[in-house]
Amino acid sequence: MKTVAVLGTGVIGAGWAARLLFNGIDVIAYDPDPAAAEKLRSAIAKAQPALAKLSMVTAGPVGQLHIADDLQAAVAKADFIQENAAERLDVKQDLLVNVSHLAGDDVIIASSTSGFMPSILQQQCRNPQRVIVGHPFNPVYLLPLVEVVAGKRSSDVVIAQAMAFYRQIGMHPLHVRKEIDGHLSDRLQEALWREALHLVNDGVATTDELDQAVIYGPGLRWAIMGTCLTFHLAGGDHGMRHMLEQFGPALKLPWTKLEAPELSADLIEKMVAQTQAQGANKSIAELEQLRDACLVAIMQSLRSFDYAAGATLKAYETRQAASASDRAAATIADADPCQPLRLHSTTVQPDWIDYNGHMTEARYLQVFGDANDAIMRHIGVDAGYLASGFSYYTVETHIRHLNEVSVHQPLVVASQVISADAKRMHLFHALHRGVDGSLLATGEHMMLHVDQGANKAVPAKPAVLEKLLTVAANHAGLDRPDGAGRFVGQGRG
Amino acid sequence: MKTVAVLGTGVIGAGWAARLLFNGIDVIAYDPDPAAAEKLRSAIAKAQPALAKLSMVTAGPVGQLHIADDLQAAVAKADFIQENAAERLDVKQDLLVNVSHLAGDDVIIASSTSGFMPSILQQQCRNPQRVIVGHPFNPVYLLPLVEVVAGKRSSDVVIAQAMAFYRQIGMHPLHVRKEIDGHLSDRLQEALWREALHLVNDGVATTDELDQAVIYGPGLRWAIMGTCLTFHLAGGDHGMRHMLEQFGPALKLPWTKLEAPELSADLIEKMVAQTQAQGANKSIAELEQLRDACLVAIMQSLRSFDYAAGATLKAYETRQAASASDRAAATIADADPCQPLRLHSTTVQPDWIDYNGHMTEARYLQVFGDANDAIMRHIGVDAGYLASGFSYYTVETHIRHLNEVSVHQPLVVASQVISADAKRMHLFHALHRGVDGSLLATGEHMMLHVDQGANKAVPAKPAVLEKLLTVAANHAGLDRPDGAGRFVGQGRG
Repeated sequence: MKTVAVLGTGVIGAGWAARLLFNGIDVIAYDPDPAAAEKLRSAIAKAQPALAKLSMVTAGPVGQLHIADDLQAAVAKADFIQENAAERLDVKQDLLVNVSHLAGDDVIIASSTSGFMPSILQQQCRNPQRVIVGHPFNPVYLLPLVEVVAGKRSSDVVIAQAMAFYRQIGMHPLHVRKEIDGHLSDRLQEALWREALHLVNDGVATTDELDQAVIYGPGLRWAIMGTCLTFHLAGGDHGMRHMLEQFGPALKLPWTKLEAPELSADLIEKMVAQTQAQGANKSIAELEQLRDACLVAIMQSLRSFDYAAGATLKAYETRQAASASDRAAATIADADPCQPLRLHSTTVQPDWIDYNGHMTEARYLQVFGDANDAIMRHIGVDAGYLASGFSYYTVETHIRHLNEVSVHQPLVVASQVISADAKRMHLFHALHRGVDGSLLATGEHMMLHVDQGANKAVPAKPAVLEKLLTVAANHAGLDRPDGAGRFVGQGRG
Repeated sequence: MKTVAVLGTGVIGAGWAARLLFNGIDVIAYDPDPAAAEKLRSAIAKAQPALAKLSMVTAGPVGQLHIADDLQAAVAKADFIQENAAERLDVKQDLLVNVSHLAGDDVIIASSTSGFMPSILQQQCRNPQRVIVGHPFNPVYLLPLVEVVAGKRSSDVVIAQAMAFYRQIGMHPLHVRKEIDGHLSDRLQEALWREALHLVNDGVATTDELDQAVIYGPGLRWAIMGTCLTFHLAGGDHGMRHMLEQFGPALKLPWTKLEAPELSADLIEKMVAQTQAQGANKSIAELEQLRDACLVAIMQSLRSFDYAAGATLKAYETRQAASASDRAAATIADADPCQPLRLHSTTVQPDWIDYNGHMTEARYLQVFGDANDAIMRHIGVDAGYLASGFSYYTVETHIRHLNEVSVHQPLVVASQVISADAKRMHLFHALHRGVDGSLLATGEHMMLHVDQGANKAVPAKPAVLEKLLTVAANHAGLDRPDGAGRFVGQGRG
């Protein structure tokens, strides 16, 4: 597909446009609202930063956006049509009939409808076999799910083509095999939504409390496992069968306003067999391990935003760090000042890992850069010093990668001042694995003290210089580290 | 709290024990099942790796685990009691009455019950003011949520003490202000669960399809925003109010088997006011930005597990990488092969900037690392080659920072092969500002061709080696770049 018509450019239509353009596909957009084009451009611009960050691979050229003046102009040259009109049956039906007459004979017409069945939407259309549902989720430019649903008259080939196209633009097409109001995902969401409305209506909880009841608990699991696999894992060694025995009786309790189906022997067998098939290649213990690793990664990735479960973790760590630094204070006070400084330690984060499964090379320099910062703070280059317009800049770096580093490994940096004068600070870091102390990499850095306003090297202020020269004097008795002064391609010599 | 009694050590009790021990709290565990102690120890051991990874701060010493022979021994010395018996009202009531007679007068007794109301549980207890619900979520050692619910006779002080205690062990206590069967979170989960049972029962979908309908779409959002805030953001500029107008009528449609409440004016006002309060300090645009950043981080963190939405992203990137190398090949075809290769260009992103307002040093290496990857793809080290277990690893890097780089600047890398042989590739990159071509930095890299399985250097495969040696021969006539072969601290010489 080279050109896609996006009909209706509200939140969903604009999300489709952003995803398509980013994937190098030309978009012809049409919306009867005269203000729509401007809103669309703004929505696409807002989606760019997140889209650009998502993939590690540099994207190709973006597609062209064309704004059509009328429906005919919008669909005449389209290879694929995505309809995103308001969720009203009459509106969608009329629009789709018109589109089916204006579009090329075999051009696929997919509706983003949240709830209507494709059979009802395609009824009056010309060539109804190419009319289907392709239901995405907000934000469409990021979330992979798209439900693909055939109507009674849709062809299998069209479904296969649409699935392939959605996959091409980075999505996860889910073939909904039986059409039903609300498809699959919205039925599940709608049940939860209606229960939430009841709870607010009955004054039991606020929307914020209901959201908290999701994001700090089941929501974290729902990012990686649905309700069925989640319950399979909560059932202990006997999985879903035990879960149904334990919580089956609760289906009779008023735990929701929703009436549950009879938990017949047939239904129990279906649930057990299907969840077992889901975890087919993995034991419950293996699934638990995978779940835990993913949960850790999710909570850690949210930590940098200080948001949702990431905020809980961050606050916890702050308290932990206070006790840890109490514990460490004693250790540091006792440390030999003539040995390398151990000012920086960290843990390899999941997003530091490359396609080889190892820490990506730029992260080595991040760790060494953080160690440089730690030394700067140690000699008094703190926030106040920086605010006064002076700092150290790195002018030259040499890194040796000696051993592989993988996810979640604790790292410790030992830092030596090789030489120092009024303007310069020559540092050497040894990066060790925290567990066994093995050497992973070395970093050698020349730092220059600069007046940021004048943008030139100047002597450090006396208090900083004195501390730096004291460390340098303490380190003067250390051996020159192995690897210092090396150049790339020098050979083992 | 220094010592906690954990009564009942199934999946939930064992999860509590693991979390408590990790936080330096002693645990006295009791379970009538003779095999329980062994299972408990194994469950605690399984939880350790994830717990150890979660926080960046090194944990303090762990607590001691004691197995009690009877209930009296379990609760006699406890400062806090967490009950995790089977979810049967008579079982829990009997146990709690016994515990209330055996435990110290003011010791808090919290039940992990998923659904029973604390008023019903505390009825027959001695000192019922200290009997409450503290409902956690599996895996208890990782998920932060714990619902804290008071019964009619519980005291406010007890609730406050329990919340503080749960917070101390890294949790997010949610005070459920009105007791109700299933509390808050399980009512929402139960609605979704019953709908899922209906869909399986009716043969509409399998458990796997239902789980896919969650994890690739709404589940990713539920890790960061509940249904209410999610819908607020889906409503465009008018948020929840628009959402209720647009999807209010759907409450009458059979999108779930759950009967919705009447969407009265009063309910609309409640929903709108409460969701607005949730986003109080942020505009919808800011919330969208936060949501996008979190979603990107979650999907990227799942990528390294090649699981759920991370698997979609990984597959997408593999295809993207293939097209990226096709595009590069076309550009290269027209270029002078005896000049440095220009295979990588990018733009400085806002989050690449440090506190000085310049590109942070690790990002230089990221750009050079991407340029290394581009050269690898150019000589045929593509996804298939990597999948066969061979790759190039960077073993040594030298960077000179020559000019400042600020946000949104376009960057272009010109790459020269200084030398190459069967195992080695010596590269030199010049990083130019795209606008005026000025030199910003240089990167010099030694890359080694490795067999990843054997973890040792081996010759590249013939097709790759031939391409590499051709480039090296083409570049043989170029001058040795200024700065190549330098070591840190060499001086201007």
